[in-house]
Formats: sequence, C-alpha cells, structure tokens
Amino acid sequence: MSRFFSNKYDSLDAYVPGEQPKDCQYVKLNTNESPFPPAPAVLEAVRGEAEKLHLYSDPECKALVEKLAETYGLKPTQVLPTNGSDEILNFAFMAFCDREHPIVFPDISYGFYSVFAKLNGVPYETIPLKEDFSIDHREYVGIGKNIVIANPNAPTGLCLSLKQVEEIVASNPHNVVIIDEAYVDFGGESAVKLIDKYDNLLVTQTFSKSRNLAGARLGMGFACESLIADLNTIKYSTNPYNVNRMTMAAGIAMLESTEYFEKNLAEICRVREYTAAELRKMGFTALDSKTNFLFVRSEEIDGEKLYAELKKRGVLVRHFTAERIAQFNRVTIGTKEQMDVFLEKTREILKEQKQ
Amino acid sequence: MSRFFSNKYDSLDAYVPGEQPKDCQYVKLNTNESPFPPAPAVLEAVRGEAEKLHLYSDPECKALVEKLAETYGLKPTQVLPTNGSDEILNFAFMAFCDREHPIVFPDISYGFYSVFAKLNGVPYETIPLKEDFSIDHREYVGIGKNIVIANPNAPTGLCLSLKQVEEIVASNPHNVVIIDEAYVDFGGESAVKLIDKYDNLLVTQTFSKSRNLAGARLGMGFACESLIADLNTIKYSTNPYNVNRMTMAAGIAMLESTEYFEKNLAEICRVREYTAAELRKMGFTALDSKTNFLFVRSEEIDGEKLYAELKKRGVLVRHFTAERIAQFNRVTIGTKEQMDVFLEKTREILKEQKQ
Repeated sequence: MSRFFSNKYDSLDAYVPGEQPKDCQYVKLNTNESPFPPAPAVLEAVRGEAEKLHLYSDPECKALVEKLAETYGLKPTQVLPTNGSDEILNFAFMAFCDREHPIVFPDISYGFYSVFAKLNGVPYETIPLKEDFSIDHREYVGIGKNIVIANPNAPTGLCLSLKQVEEIVASNPHNVVIIDEAYVDFGGESAVKLIDKYDNLLVTQTFSKSRNLAGARLGMGFACESLIADLNTIKYSTNPYNVNRMTMAAGIAMLESTEYFEKNLAEICRVREYTAAELRKMGFTALDSKTNFLFVRSEEIDGEKLYAELKKRGVLVRHFTAERIAQFNRVTIGTKEQMDVFLEKTREILKEQKQ
Repeated sequence: MSRFFSNKYDSLDAYVPGEQPKDCQYVKLNTNESPFPPAPAVLEAVRGEAEKLHLYSDPECKALVEKLAETYGLKPTQVLPTNGSDEILNFAFMAFCDREHPIVFPDISYGFYSVFAKLNGVPYETIPLKEDFSIDHREYVGIGKNIVIANPNAPTGLCLSLKQVEEIVASNPHNVVIIDEAYVDFGGESAVKLIDKYDNLLVTQTFSKSRNLAGARLGMGFACESLIADLNTIKYSTNPYNVNRMTMAAGIAMLESTEYFEKNLAEICRVREYTAAELRKMGFTALDSKTNFLFVRSEEIDGEKLYAELKKRGVLVRHFTAERIAQFNRVTIGTKEQMDVFLEKTREILKEQKQ
C-alpha cells in the first residue's frame, strides 16, 4: 500500500479470484467455466470485428441490447450489458446503496458482495443460511433494506423458487432487490418475468457460465426502465465504452446459437447428475445443485486436504476457508471425460486415506 | 432517474461521448480514432483467442503486462492494463482522491475529469488555461493537491515539456500527479522515464489513439510499484477480469508490430501538418498540435455553425459548447483522402458564408 491510498478503504480486502494456472495442464474444475468452446458463429463474428478495432465500439451497445431484449422478452430500455456481471453488480452497489441504504445478503454466497459493500462504503449485514445450507427466504421478507441474493446460490448450488423471490421483492417496495442469476440457466427459475411488475427488482446474468464466454467478459442487468437509466448514469460516469467490439459481436452470435446453447446445457446437467450419483456412491454429501457445479463433502477426508490431494494429481477444484463450509469443495462440471478423471482421482485419494 | 438513485450523485452529469453514427456514412473526424486498421498480427492473435473464450482471461494479464514493461522499459510491477484508459483514470480518482484529498486540473481539458471527481465525491478546482490556451505549469508547482493533466492537452493539442512536468511532480511530493498521455505518441515527451524517480507520479496511456485499437478497449497506468499495488486493490475490488482475452492478445500483437505503428504515426503527423497548413491558408487559426487532431477556428464563421454545416455535408468533427472554446472545432486527423474531403467541404462552407 502506498502512503497515498485513501483511508476510506481501510477495511477493504480485495476479492481473490479462483486460481488461473497459466500452463493449462490441470483438469480445471475451479471457476465454473463451460467445458465447451463458444459456438462456431462466435469465431466468425469476432473475426469480422477484428478488422474494425481502430473504431470505437458503440457506447449504447445497440445491436447487443436489442438482441438481449428480444431473447429475454424485454424492452431495450430494460437491458444493460456490462464488462462481465461483476461490473453490473458494482454499478448497482454504487447506484442504490450508500451509508443510509445498507444491504443484506446470505452469510455464504458470492464472496464479492462484501467487497463491493466495503469498496463503496455501504454498511452490510449477512443472514446465516439454514442448517441445510438453503436460504430462509422469510428472513428477507419485509426487511426494509437493499438485498442481493444469488439464485441459484453459490457455492451451494441451491435455489429459491420464483414464488419465494417474488415475496421478497414485493415485501420490500422501498428497497432494491438484486437477484444475481449467474447460474440460472442450469435449472433455476428466472425472475426476469417479474420485471414489468416491480420497479425495485434488478436481475443480473452473465455469459461466463452457460453461454461459453467467460474469457470475453460479458454480463448484463435487467430491470425496469428507471433503474436501468440510473445504472446507465453510472456507466457513462465511469466507462462509457465498457463493452468492446469483439465481445459485443461474440455475445450476439452466442445468443443466436440457440441450438448449440441448449445442447451444451443439457449435457452439463446430465454430467452433473452422473457426477453427483457417483460421488454419493462414494459416501459424499452433494447438495442438490441447479448450477454447473457441485458442492460436496465427505466424512472421510478433510475438505482442504481433498482439494490439495486433487491438485497434486492435476485436478483443480475450489476450496473456501470459511468455517461453515471448510469441509466442502466446489467442483465445476466439465466434460464427462474430465469428471471421470476427477472421480477416479477422488476414489484413489479416499482409498489412500483409509490405509 | 428512479426513486432509488443515491443522492450522493445529485450533482453528477454523466460524460457524453462523441457521436458514434451507426450508419458509418460520415467522414468521421470526431473521436480521435486512428484512420488505419489494426496491424495484421492483431487479426491473427484475436482469431487464436476466440476459440478459448469459454475460459476466463488471466486476471493478472501476465503476458500483456510483461510486454508492456519490456516496451516501456519498466518492471512488470510498475504496469497495470485496464478496460480503456477511462478505467485507470477512474481507479486513480478512487484510490488517491477523497474528501480530504481534492484534485485540480485545467479548466479546458478532457471532460471526464470533473465527472470522475463528482462520481467519487472528490472536491475539485479548475485552473484556467492561459490566453493562448496553453497550461501555465507554474500554477501547479507546489499546489499541494492531487493533479491530473492531459499532456498533450485535449482538445487544444498543446504540450508541456518534460521539464515542466517534472517540476510539477517534484514540487508536490505529498500528492499524486496523474499525467494523462493519451496522445503522447504523436509528438509529446512522455513522463514514463520519471517513474523510477518519483513515487507520486502516475502516467496513463491508451491503445485507442496511436495504437489502432479504440474498439478493443485497452488502456494502462505506469507508476511506482506501490501506486500500482493500490490501483490493483481497486481493480480486484471492482472487476478482477477487467481485460478480456481478445483485447489482451490484440494489445500484445500491436506492441509487437513496431514498424506498422511507426509508419502510421509518421503518416498521421504528416497529414496533420498538411491539414494545418491548408486551413491556415484559408485564414483559420490552428493551435500547434502534438496530437492526432487539430483545434481550429475561423473568424469568418461561428464554430457551431461550421460543425453543423460540415455534418450536413457528411463530415463529423467535434464541437464543444464551453464559452471559451465555442468558436473552435476539434478535427481528428484521418487519411489524406478524408482530410481532403474535409478541406474541400470547409472551403465550400466558407465561400457560401461570404455570399
């Protein structure tokens, strides 16, 4: 830290992303990427844009906004694309939260929420998950504070129903409720259909998980026109050209590749259920995931040890140190072949453990 | 504005980017882009990355950071690439400015500085340019406040010497001095060589102007290790994967295309001098530009009228409404052919004006 760093960040600890090994020799199941490359149309679209890179991208992202609106059944004024969904989440913390407008979220959830809160000087409270790691939605009903909930939640993979989400949104009309749907395509119920009904609802999604574009950085927010207008004010006051030409083209191409998208999704869900079943056969507890990852533990081995032993054997999963979940690991669903390597190594480790 | 928008932004007016017409039928001389496409190596590099878009980009941008460090004679720890240079500027306002650490900048300069200040709740003062539109560097010597200066300045195109910049940096050891060198490659003297000497200097640059990548969004900050560490804390607290795979690859390829870069620069400077000479023959005042644009006025026609008449004729230039510069227009240097169209239309307009 330099002697110039503002003391408003005294309590800030930056987010630590999952390991991104540069040698790529790992079976990489630690950052919830898609194991499948982007649709062929993406390659073509990106190629076309590369020749025009000397010209600024469209700050309004018109073509992408229109395609998103069409895909999600919204008006273009209800959509804002961003440089990954972390950016739309930060914009929301900036726009709607401040010292007088605190925010609440589950104690176990996406680790970035508390970072955004501290960064923006926003008081926050966390609400413990239930014993079974699900969110007790009643705790948020009529709470009278801004709320951010990942649904499905990470790293648990568990869901609230649309009815429960609606109860939270409807009962907090004077506060903004952010539903972070990074993983919704893998089995959750999206709150996008509530947007016309509630002016206090912001839904965020991403192209990083179900749409094969983690490396292109594309996220988006869906909300009523006036919330999107506020988020646009933040965007035009920080980074008006936040989405570059290539990413915009890639996003449109991916939205047009419906068949490829659905085939990938179905395969990931199939492999998820297969992996969960195999793990349960080995005695693992695997929470009921509606995402592209599994949150698992075994009574037979310490969570951190399993992570380390897998890493030694060339398989990367994600381990968190927070006490309540220190016995778990979060395992991204890769291809069937990748999961078979993971399962084989896990069997090997458990066997050694028993000896 | 929604009823939820934080009142901390009551005085905020978002930045308004230059017009980006979507039909592309204009001779577009309004946003200081390069008229030349990116180097051929960029197309190849982007193509190679497109296939890997399902995998996150490297949050440390290691390969790009190393190439930047090599190119600019710095250590990798003295470099931070961002999603355009607006992002590094905003990071700097966030990191080093606050209510107790105000900032000063010239009254006529990049319009975004006051937006960043308001966005971040930072008090700011502007210092008027001299009568001849140059920056009086003595006004900043020992001022005891954070400073941001575009050098060369926009929209004037005028420069401070390296000696003047050093005097400002050296005389404000308890404050951060940001030198925004978006246009430095077109004829300014870079302050990068002062970085090892001063721990309070941040130099920002961009790939949007001289490096043909406006549409890829790539900027960077150069500073001593501890300032870069602070800026990284901000990055990891807002958007750890801020630079996507394709942009990273494009940036590296562009840095490797030295010959292409230098040829483009020389051509733009040649066409700039040609255009300035032609305009002066028509009676225009053109400030002595060290950038890829000219800041020009004619006694014979109102600045806004010239802008509007050119637009009618298919030529877009940038007009600002601030009183001191309302008689000027900022004209990006395009290809010789584009500038000939601009000159011809300008002659036509002046002729009509006299009738």
